[in-house]
Amino acid sequence: MTIYEDALQAHEKWRGKIEVTSKIRVKTKDDLSLAYTPGVAEPCRKIADDPKKAYDYTWKGNSVAVVTDGTAVLGLGDIGPAAALPVMEGKALLFKEFADIDAVPICLDTKDPQEIIQIVKAIAPTFGGINLEDISAPRCVEIERALIEALDIPVFHDDQPGTAIVVTAALINALKLVKKEPQNLKVVISGTGAAGSAIIQMLVKLGVKEIFAFNKEGALHQQMSKPTFVEKEILALISPQNFSGAMEEAFVGADVFIGVSAPKIVTKKMIASMNNGNIVFPMANPEPEISYDEAIAAGADIVGTGRSDFPNQINNVLAFPGLFRGAFAAEAKKITSSMKLACAHAIADTIPYSELNSDYVIPSAFDENVVEQITMKVAEAARKDGVTR
Amino acid sequence: MTIYEDALQAHEKWRGKIEVTSKIRVKTKDDLSLAYTPGVAEPCRKIADDPKKAYDYTWKGNSVAVVTDGTAVLGLGDIGPAAALPVMEGKALLFKEFADIDAVPICLDTKDPQEIIQIVKAIAPTFGGINLEDISAPRCVEIERALIEALDIPVFHDDQPGTAIVVTAALINALKLVKKEPQNLKVVISGTGAAGSAIIQMLVKLGVKEIFAFNKEGALHQQMSKPTFVEKEILALISPQNFSGAMEEAFVGADVFIGVSAPKIVTKKMIASMNNGNIVFPMANPEPEISYDEAIAAGADIVGTGRSDFPNQINNVLAFPGLFRGAFAAEAKKITSSMKLACAHAIADTIPYSELNSDYVIPSAFDENVVEQITMKVAEAARKDGVTR
Repeated sequence: MTIYEDALQAHEKWRGKIEVTSKIRVKTKDDLSLAYTPGVAEPCRKIADDPKKAYDYTWKGNSVAVVTDGTAVLGLGDIGPAAALPVMEGKALLFKEFADIDAVPICLDTKDPQEIIQIVKAIAPTFGGINLEDISAPRCVEIERALIEALDIPVFHDDQPGTAIVVTAALINALKLVKKEPQNLKVVISGTGAAGSAIIQMLVKLGVKEIFAFNKEGALHQQMSKPTFVEKEILALISPQNFSGAMEEAFVGADVFIGVSAPKIVTKKMIASMNNGNIVFPMANPEPEISYDEAIAAGADIVGTGRSDFPNQINNVLAFPGLFRGAFAAEAKKITSSMKLACAHAIADTIPYSELNSDYVIPSAFDENVVEQITMKVAEAARKDGVTR
Repeated sequence: MTIYEDALQAHEKWRGKIEVTSKIRVKTKDDLSLAYTPGVAEPCRKIADDPKKAYDYTWKGNSVAVVTDGTAVLGLGDIGPAAALPVMEGKALLFKEFADIDAVPICLDTKDPQEIIQIVKAIAPTFGGINLEDISAPRCVEIERALIEALDIPVFHDDQPGTAIVVTAALINALKLVKKEPQNLKVVISGTGAAGSAIIQMLVKLGVKEIFAFNKEGALHQQMSKPTFVEKEILALISPQNFSGAMEEAFVGADVFIGVSAPKIVTKKMIASMNNGNIVFPMANPEPEISYDEAIAAGADIVGTGRSDFPNQINNVLAFPGLFRGAFAAEAKKITSSMKLACAHAIADTIPYSELNSDYVIPSAFDENVVEQITMKVAEAARKDGVTR
């Protein structure tokens, strides 16, 4: 059987990968009086007097809504809210398994960004954090920003900074191996949507100066036609800003390639034209911009993809559980860019320098140190940024 | 310590009475491939082709959203969504403990009925049922009706039919003891809000012909000023429709009194004026329309209240777990009035006739037969009504 047939059978058996369980038993009238009426009236009154007390008397300090509109689910695209539910349940499962966080899928039957913003604002009193998931770009950027602005709980779109954090973590370790510094790199990025734009922002924060960015039409540059509002922002960050050549040209002498775009758009010839000590992260999934094997054959030094069946899987599951765990530990009201960069460094640092090699620049998602390290570093960054309650 | 101090301490210790747990372990790459990417794509595709398949591959067939706007929480009134969370967690806890249903609190930061309707419609793909809770009347009636109309999953407002079901169950058994038939009863009802209106509807369905209904201003009758839209509907159901006297007058010769209104509005003299073999259910909580002891002292034959510290506690927790369990078992798309009446009969029938007595007309919430019996009877009624998927 294929993994798809296996998964279908397993899902039919499970009928839900998560469940809501009670932390206490209710077997007697006294139990009922304590957990429900009349006793429950007292925590209600305390929270009515001071809404922050919700963190003391409810699950608010440990709960996350995993919110999607089903418009950009995996590689499947706009499959709608019902069909997105298995992925959101999976995400909630990972929140619990990796970070003991109570996550609830919320699949929304609307694609209107303003309505999504309004709904998430309305349900926010119930939760301690919002994880936006699989919402198509550039709508997701608009939604994420409005919610970060409006809410006093962490809001995070996993397909934007989530991907950026794990790519940056892999890059930090790869740079140790090739002995290069961020400020001297020539970086080529293919894909300027949700993930690409977040990666560029984080690379700039890491110190990278030279970035060539490409969308489906070609290079982002000042005379390009019809940039999205996200691309306009990227343009202000990248340098050079007037390069309008082909991606093939940009590859010549490049140190790093990062792909979050489309299958098979990078050739062996392009890889061969890169600088010595190059780093290639083609992450289109399941079919990368160039396969691991081809990239290696063409002379790539360090290759990482989104796939679990090749070395260096750059996997979002490395970031979000610990990131929320750390934000919750610090009682953070938001997730700052320093917290995200701290998360990337924490992921990278779980591999001791002596163990790093070209096929091991990013830890396994099952490395139990990862969440612990991230939690500590992210909480530290939150306190430093003064964004705690 | 009082129950309130105890409950506050317990809630601070628990920090959430429910949690979201994973039904499967994720310890290896293979686990991840099966429950998450890439395997999860297959159930997603199947549901995209046929949304009903969500019942086969996700938690949809067993999940309920417990939705409130925090406007009518317990006896505390409009305390807002954050302060309502301990009660909604309690409700979710009872769903799990009594019926193994996965219930999620959703506390909404809006009081606008249209917005609440829109939000619940939008989140509905995630859940198999909607339990509305503690939303003030008459807004709750408008919201419940719009959602029943719009959605193809069970929608139920516990403060309306939930209360009506348990009152009717207690009445059915009390009538067995006093050997009276519904069609011969003279019933007085105080309270014409969410609960009162639902009770009147159910009594009429049970066969009751003579109902005197009162709101704060006095008797509902055809010349009354400013009836709410709910009261207009009640007026069409009750008989007589032209009685405009005081409640005291209506009590004379009455067989049944049901109170869902305000503390201490019924006197011993009123009880004493009732017919022989009378039934008195003063359910204002925590302070009833007349106390159990006073009612008994005044000559009431069978008395039930909302309180757990007196006999015959008429408790909503008897109804909603089994009602949803039965609806889910039958794959019902809605909860019909026959299903609600079947639920009332099932609750009543869990007490054998030989065990019935004036202080035992309604089973304990902890009687394990209750949910099982309701499930069977409600599912049967759903199939009979042809409302299954």
